[in-house]
Amino acid sequence: MASVQDIGLSAAINLLSAFAFLFAFAMLRLQPVNDRVYFPKWYLKGIRGSPTRSRGIMTRFVNLDWTTYVKFLNWMPAALKMPEPELIEHAGLDSAVYIRIYLLGLKMFVPITLLAFGVLVPVNWTGETLENIDDLTFSNVDKLSISNVPPGSPRFWAHITMTYVFTLWTCYILYMEYKTVANMRLRHLAAESRRPDQLTVLVRNVPPDPDESVNEHVEHFFCVNHPDHYLCHQARFFSWLNVVYNANDLAKLVAQRKAMQNWLTYYENKFERKPSSRPTTKTGYGGFWGTTVDAIDFYTSKMDILARQEAVEREKIMNDPKSIMPAAFVSFRSRWGTAVCAQTQQCHNPTIWLTEWAPEPRDVFWDNLAIPYVELSIRRLLTTVALFFLIFCFMIPIAFVQSLANLEGIQKVLPFLKPVIEMKTVKSVIQGFLPGIALKIFLIILPTILMTMSQIEGYTSLSYLDRRSAEKYFWFIIVNVFLGSIITGTAFQQLKSFLEQPPTEIPKTVGVSIPMKATFFITYIMVDGWAGIAAEILRVVPLVIFHLKNTFLVKTEQDRQQAMDPGHLDFATSEPRIQFYFLLGLVYAAVAPILLPFIIVFFAFAYVVFRHQVINVYDQKYESGARYWPDVHRRLIICLIISQLLMMGLLSTKKFAKVTALLLPQPILTFWFYRYCAGRFESAFSKFPLQEAMVKDTLEKATEPNLNLKEYLKEAYVHPVFKGNDFDRPRAVDEEESNPLVRTKRTSQGTTRYNSEASSSATATPVANTGSPRLM
Amino acid sequence: MASVQDIGLSAAINLLSAFAFLFAFAMLRLQPVNDRVYFPKWYLKGIRGSPTRSRGIMTRFVNLDWTTYVKFLNWMPAALKMPEPELIEHAGLDSAVYIRIYLLGLKMFVPITLLAFGVLVPVNWTGETLENIDDLTFSNVDKLSISNVPPGSPRFWAHITMTYVFTLWTCYILYMEYKTVANMRLRHLAAESRRPDQLTVLVRNVPPDPDESVNEHVEHFFCVNHPDHYLCHQARFFSWLNVVYNANDLAKLVAQRKAMQNWLTYYENKFERKPSSRPTTKTGYGGFWGTTVDAIDFYTSKMDILARQEAVEREKIMNDPKSIMPAAFVSFRSRWGTAVCAQTQQCHNPTIWLTEWAPEPRDVFWDNLAIPYVELSIRRLLTTVALFFLIFCFMIPIAFVQSLANLEGIQKVLPFLKPVIEMKTVKSVIQGFLPGIALKIFLIILPTILMTMSQIEGYTSLSYLDRRSAEKYFWFIIVNVFLGSIITGTAFQQLKSFLEQPPTEIPKTVGVSIPMKATFFITYIMVDGWAGIAAEILRVVPLVIFHLKNTFLVKTEQDRQQAMDPGHLDFATSEPRIQFYFLLGLVYAAVAPILLPFIIVFFAFAYVVFRHQVINVYDQKYESGARYWPDVHRRLIICLIISQLLMMGLLSTKKFAKVTALLLPQPILTFWFYRYCAGRFESAFSKFPLQEAMVKDTLEKATEPNLNLKEYLKEAYVHPVFKGNDFDRPRAVDEEESNPLVRTKRTSQGTTRYNSEASSSATATPVANTGSPRLM
Repeated sequence: MASVQDIGLSAAINLLSAFAFLFAFAMLRLQPVNDRVYFPKWYLKGIRGSPTRSRGIMTRFVNLDWTTYVKFLNWMPAALKMPEPELIEHAGLDSAVYIRIYLLGLKMFVPITLLAFGVLVPVNWTGETLENIDDLTFSNVDKLSISNVPPGSPRFWAHITMTYVFTLWTCYILYMEYKTVANMRLRHLAAESRRPDQLTVLVRNVPPDPDESVNEHVEHFFCVNHPDHYLCHQARFFSWLNVVYNANDLAKLVAQRKAMQNWLTYYENKFERKPSSRPTTKTGYGGFWGTTVDAIDFYTSKMDILARQEAVEREKIMNDPKSIMPAAFVSFRSRWGTAVCAQTQQCHNPTIWLTEWAPEPRDVFWDNLAIPYVELSIRRLLTTVALFFLIFCFMIPIAFVQSLANLEGIQKVLPFLKPVIEMKTVKSVIQGFLPGIALKIFLIILPTILMTMSQIEGYTSLSYLDRRSAEKYFWFIIVNVFLGSIITGTAFQQLKSFLEQPPTEIPKTVGVSIPMKATFFITYIMVDGWAGIAAEILRVVPLVIFHLKNTFLVKTEQDRQQAMDPGHLDFATSEPRIQFYFLLGLVYAAVAPILLPFIIVFFAFAYVVFRHQVINVYDQKYESGARYWPDVHRRLIICLIISQLLMMGLLSTKKFAKVTALLLPQPILTFWFYRYCAGRFESAFSKFPLQEAMVKDTLEKATEPNLNLKEYLKEAYVHPVFKGNDFDRPRAVDEEESNPLVRTKRTSQGTTRYNSEASSSATATPVANTGSPRLM
Repeated sequence: MASVQDIGLSAAINLLSAFAFLFAFAMLRLQPVNDRVYFPKWYLKGIRGSPTRSRGIMTRFVNLDWTTYVKFLNWMPAALKMPEPELIEHAGLDSAVYIRIYLLGLKMFVPITLLAFGVLVPVNWTGETLENIDDLTFSNVDKLSISNVPPGSPRFWAHITMTYVFTLWTCYILYMEYKTVANMRLRHLAAESRRPDQLTVLVRNVPPDPDESVNEHVEHFFCVNHPDHYLCHQARFFSWLNVVYNANDLAKLVAQRKAMQNWLTYYENKFERKPSSRPTTKTGYGGFWGTTVDAIDFYTSKMDILARQEAVEREKIMNDPKSIMPAAFVSFRSRWGTAVCAQTQQCHNPTIWLTEWAPEPRDVFWDNLAIPYVELSIRRLLTTVALFFLIFCFMIPIAFVQSLANLEGIQKVLPFLKPVIEMKTVKSVIQGFLPGIALKIFLIILPTILMTMSQIEGYTSLSYLDRRSAEKYFWFIIVNVFLGSIITGTAFQQLKSFLEQPPTEIPKTVGVSIPMKATFFITYIMVDGWAGIAAEILRVVPLVIFHLKNTFLVKTEQDRQQAMDPGHLDFATSEPRIQFYFLLGLVYAAVAPILLPFIIVFFAFAYVVFRHQVINVYDQKYESGARYWPDVHRRLIICLIISQLLMMGLLSTKKFAKVTALLLPQPILTFWFYRYCAGRFESAFSKFPLQEAMVKDTLEKATEPNLNLKEYLKEAYVHPVFKGNDFDRPRAVDEEESNPLVRTKRTSQGTTRYNSEASSSATATPVANTGSPRLM
């Protein structure tokens, strides 16, 4: 195993590479030409415009002010400067709470590290077991770990006590964080201005009725069963029904027209640059063959045809009763009525007339709105079985591909390739890359596979899909990355051996291997954690793509807006990865505390980087109000319990078995703590209390007595394809911007202020920040 | 092991003893003197009166009509005659659905038995394994079981196929039954006449308010947050709040006065029989010492003192704000409003203002209404841990008592007893009885212990307490009776060996022992099942107690009413015992089908007996509308999955391991089936849909527009001690009787008709059924 020197060297290399990334980032972000790659959020908010043409052509692309280069790291304090309330208003509660996860890691592990280094490291160091063993496989690093304590030594009392201290501290921090996040969410919901989803309920599984259309049936049902006061007496005024239409053909047409629009824009762009010759194209697929025609005329006429087809199709499905799906967004006059409808059972058959809070309009996953109950139930069963096989048997198809991908395999299956394969360079490429590449490709597409599985499961909102995918990914990481690294062999072999071992043996088997893997995981944290975060901030792929698009496609300001790829925090993949670092920290806290500083560096670095990204870059697809926190909390508890069980397994092999029973209350109490927290806070993330609803209703009635709610809700939940020609609109409804309340004004003031501070280096260049309609 | 002849003999003996019980029952029930023991339900309903005095003194006690003795078994068809709808009206849905569990057993096992005897018995019988083994431990019975099939034989395909058929059939029957019961419940709720609990919500954890009393706080909170239409504008008319009072001292006084009343009645009774001398008593405890006084005067004066104390105490706690508990029964004007309040969250803090459907007034468990959330959470944790130790370690204290109870132990602890112990008779008694008696006493008080644990857990209704106790008892039976009989050693030893075995070994260990235990369980079914049921119908203890009370205490008709002990179906203890028979049937269906006919006889016999008891005897304490069915269903599914796992374990030891994997989908699909059923039906047992509520509200508004709801609800949820002097009233509110709707009339007509049929033997005597106010 690696010595302290080896780890130090490795740390130095990784730190250097991380700093190289950071330096590159600091240089690139100062160039005005990259401004839209590193500060897209401000452009989307409309606060920052392109530099003016009037300045020198050089300064428009390159930053020549040398003072800004000296302070190349000042984005870090800038990122930390924005206070949390402003951050929530600027980037949304989802993002603000997400970066709190990193902060939580710091809060949790800094005291644990101090304690572990103060108590456990001296205890381990003076254990003097490994010094007596004349074995090269041990090094100074292991002397700091629990391996250095002789079996049966009373020194283990220190470890047992510390696991209790760590558990108590972790639970305390988790409790406080849950409380804080729950309060943040409640405040957020209370402060929120009017949004369509506050007044809307998603009704699914509307039963068929022989006499009525779905539309009529829904209207009658809610007129009868929901406050006649609200619906019947003033139905045309207060309530509004929007039945979701099944319009896949139309969606295809719209997508086609969008593609045509892109081509047309491209050629118009070309023509504008060279007004002397009109651009031509060929009529075949992709413009590569067929007769040559005038490109702009060709695409304009194609656009016309598609527009007509679209109108016909739209008319057709509007009138076709078969394309109406048995689901509806039902809106109510008051938040109280909405809360009541969303939380109660409507019909004695619990599989029809299912009501739930409507997701935000841009959060709706339209494809899953009309799945019948039985089908949904079968889909979930199949996905669960598939997930099990994916986690435990994913190596089987990959091993199969790998076996095909070796030389003999290919020669056997495709004998005619023999002469090619026997060429020396081809041979070495195949031998070197192919086997690894199959696994790499699988790991890259894994999040997509998991997301597809979640979609098959039939959840109705993007946020829910993200949460479910994160859950799946978490288990994949636990089994295949964590256990897979500790125990050799594939997950399936592990499963088999676990089934053939007594349940008390499993923590032992895993626990014994843990101290030996400390250096491996330290390297992992540095390569995957540190360097990965540094790469995140550099944004190489969006940088390249933006410049390519900007060179070839962009013509108007709106096109450039679209060419930006701000990206977003991908909860489904990044949250489970953070959980993995929590798991490592908790498992190694009492076993090999040397790992903890690396974890702390990771959390601190990631906190700063993601805070910067959230402020300047990411543009979230939806806002769920930190709805995911119960999942984060639950997974943290799972990590904690895993660490406790492994500690029990480890200690029971140290001739300390009797005392190990003292650790038994830990998982039980932790589980109880989980149940307690769930009862205490979870409903804040899934239900909307009537009291709050009543307060908001009363307030609204007092401030806006003449509000036309029906008009307000009319367009909110229209399927994207029905939105007419404005398919380029980035968001379905952007309430924050079009809202007349006072708060919004404060928002833009606040964000402007922090914008100027956060990107002080960019504003320092005299070129930037003077809005002009056209450039580059 | 026992041969077929042995089992036959045992069956004959048990059948004979069961018939002896039945004969005794048939004889005793024909005597008019026992009429109140065997038909108390009809007396409680007020349909049947005591025989008149005018007839001969002999015929009042003994039935002299010999024809009725000839038809001594005709109570059986009589019990089966009452159709189910009448049964529901007569005895309540709880009882009607409860006896359906036995019917479910018949529906499930009759086809399974036919199939098993048609297919598996021939396959096993011709297996010819045991014939080659010259071992006396095998008998003909084992030749019918799976033990007779040679390892690795393709005959096991028959067993695998049959387990699938059995599983499918069981699931089908369970699904149909769940559907039927859910529909029965919905029909029952829909047909129900107005009851206070339909309009009432139990609110718990009312937060303290510095400015207001709980009473005011509750009123204000609901006025603000619940339909202002209902509460605020017409609050004094439509809504009614009843805060539950903490009145334990008063309850004690009332109990004392009740005891005094009993004594007074006893002496008045004595005096009436011998008017010549006034009875005397002594002033000391229990009337055994102290000065001699006139008994009637003494108790009358004591009663007076207590009544005055009671009045003072009542006044005191009425005015003492400290005795008001933070809980309330909040009533609403409409069922819709009640359904909304019960199903929604009121406050952003989910641990205060907790709302749930109020239980029936007589179902309320008053002591648990005011437990704070944190305390409740800790109580549940402690009870769970205690239950675990109770199930797995209950043998430890009993073994300790047993070790004390042997001769040497007693001599050591209490040396002065030595001469007594060494007497021969005392010695044999101690050696023979004491060790067994400790276990027996424990098993008798076990249901009480479990009920106490459920009470500590803090549930608020008797029905819920029953359901939770049943759950605990079920697990106790599974671990200690089922596994304990199959594997030797205490549960704790089993647990230890299971923890040290691989999880795949457990079904193997248990599975292998199963075929060998078939004869043991057959004997168990006959002794515990057949004879137990026969003893149930004889009601020896209530019979003796009634005659004792009747002789010494009863004076007026009302006293005699109270002397009757109709008993009730004790869900908490009897349902888990039925589950045990289901478990045996499912486990042995494919292993040793010979056991199945015994199970069928049990279910058929129990069905008839309990139908008779429900019609003629039992008086339920509450009516929950078959609220327990999801529990019954879940436990049946657990039994099914246990049987599947054990079958897998058994087959994997038969050199058939590869094919055993084919059984793996069984538990997964069964679990999915459980989830599906829960989603499909469970809410019918816990929620009240708004649609139904609206229908009932509308109907009520149309039929009774001038109903004074406030007056109606005024007295419904008053704590028993506040009900003034009528503490003898057997039920708090008996809606069925005092209800003016048409249905009730039909009820009494119907029940009268079936009364006369069901107890035709009794009515055949010319003495019975001519109501008179006083006799015996």
